[in-house]
Amino acid sequence: MAASPQLVKELRELTGAGVMDCKAALEASQGDIEKAVEFLRKKGLADAAKRVHREAREGLVGAYIHPGGKIGVLVELDCETDFVARTDDFQGLVKDLSMQVAAANPSYVAREDVPGDVLEKEREIYRQQMADQKKPPHVLEKIVDGKLEKFYAEQCLLEQPFIKDASGKTKVKDLVNQLGARVGERVVMRRFARFRVGEGGERA
Amino acid sequence: MAASPQLVKELRELTGAGVMDCKAALEASQGDIEKAVEFLRKKGLADAAKRVHREAREGLVGAYIHPGGKIGVLVELDCETDFVARTDDFQGLVKDLSMQVAAANPSYVAREDVPGDVLEKEREIYRQQMADQKKPPHVLEKIVDGKLEKFYAEQCLLEQPFIKDASGKTKVKDLVNQLGARVGERVVMRRFARFRVGEGGERA
Repeated sequence: MAASPQLVKELRELTGAGVMDCKAALEASQGDIEKAVEFLRKKGLADAAKRVHREAREGLVGAYIHPGGKIGVLVELDCETDFVARTDDFQGLVKDLSMQVAAANPSYVAREDVPGDVLEKEREIYRQQMADQKKPPHVLEKIVDGKLEKFYAEQCLLEQPFIKDASGKTKVKDLVNQLGARVGERVVMRRFARFRVGEGGERA
Repeated sequence: MAASPQLVKELRELTGAGVMDCKAALEASQGDIEKAVEFLRKKGLADAAKRVHREAREGLVGAYIHPGGKIGVLVELDCETDFVARTDDFQGLVKDLSMQVAAANPSYVAREDVPGDVLEKEREIYRQQMADQKKPPHVLEKIVDGKLEKFYAEQCLLEQPFIKDASGKTKVKDLVNQLGARVGERVVMRRFARFRVGEGGERA
């Protein structure tokens, strides 16, 4: 059976695999697109990067209350199917993420979440710190960029070093991406909340 | 020992009791203000309303994850001392509040938290609903006020009927106030977060 061009196109979008591979996969699966994705994945031909177009609307909400009850965290980690959300692997990452947020106190999930005015203020502070160093502008801006990377690594959950990795080499986003690769789905750290007693706003 | 005017003033602010009662209490406690508060409280002379001026900067953060992990809640309930925060009574209310937020899905803590433009939009909708009823303006506004009360009772945690009270007569704020009266401290429902899988914003 020859695969329809429409199906081939859809499979290419889902997996990023080449036309001939997609045709072969669809023939092997007799036009079943789910099985064709499986087929390509087994052959290592499905591209993880392509998963970005798929919806991650399943997932899990997890919580962590630090002993003593003064700090509490809520996180939402998403994926594509409830099947994956129920795995121990997925639940383990939800737990690790909750403890990460409790311990490392990030302000944002991703670097894209830092508002432009916050970034500009940071840049301004860095520039002022070096105001009397008489360095050429392009060198200064390189240093500012470097300091900004450090800011991201402190303030953005996904950029933070994972607290359980003593080497400091694993970033939180590595954990998320590695899980995505293992389960073959898009995995998204959606959001978190972190409450510390006494830090909330005033209330009459 | 005669109590200093400064101590009497402080005790009056703390308890709302009269000058003579405060003087008597401070003499009985030999100038110990904590004991004087206790003394007045035992006599029923300390006014709960006066507690509003005291700081509630201790408390507990609690969480509730609904079975299945698709809905999770984080709440912060505050009081004045860690001693009270550790009581079973206080912890029980934290748990009840978490379940209330999970089940009844409020948008705000208190009616004061509803933004002005949201209120105005609600009022506008109610007025439109009655546009062809030819009622006098003051009658219409009475009805609008009534509908707004219903809105508060649905959207504001403290105004919601407590889910565990089958009669529907107990509001959540009654629980908070009753606990405050029992423990003799200001008790404040500070904030909550509620995540439901799939409801978070988009993330690339």
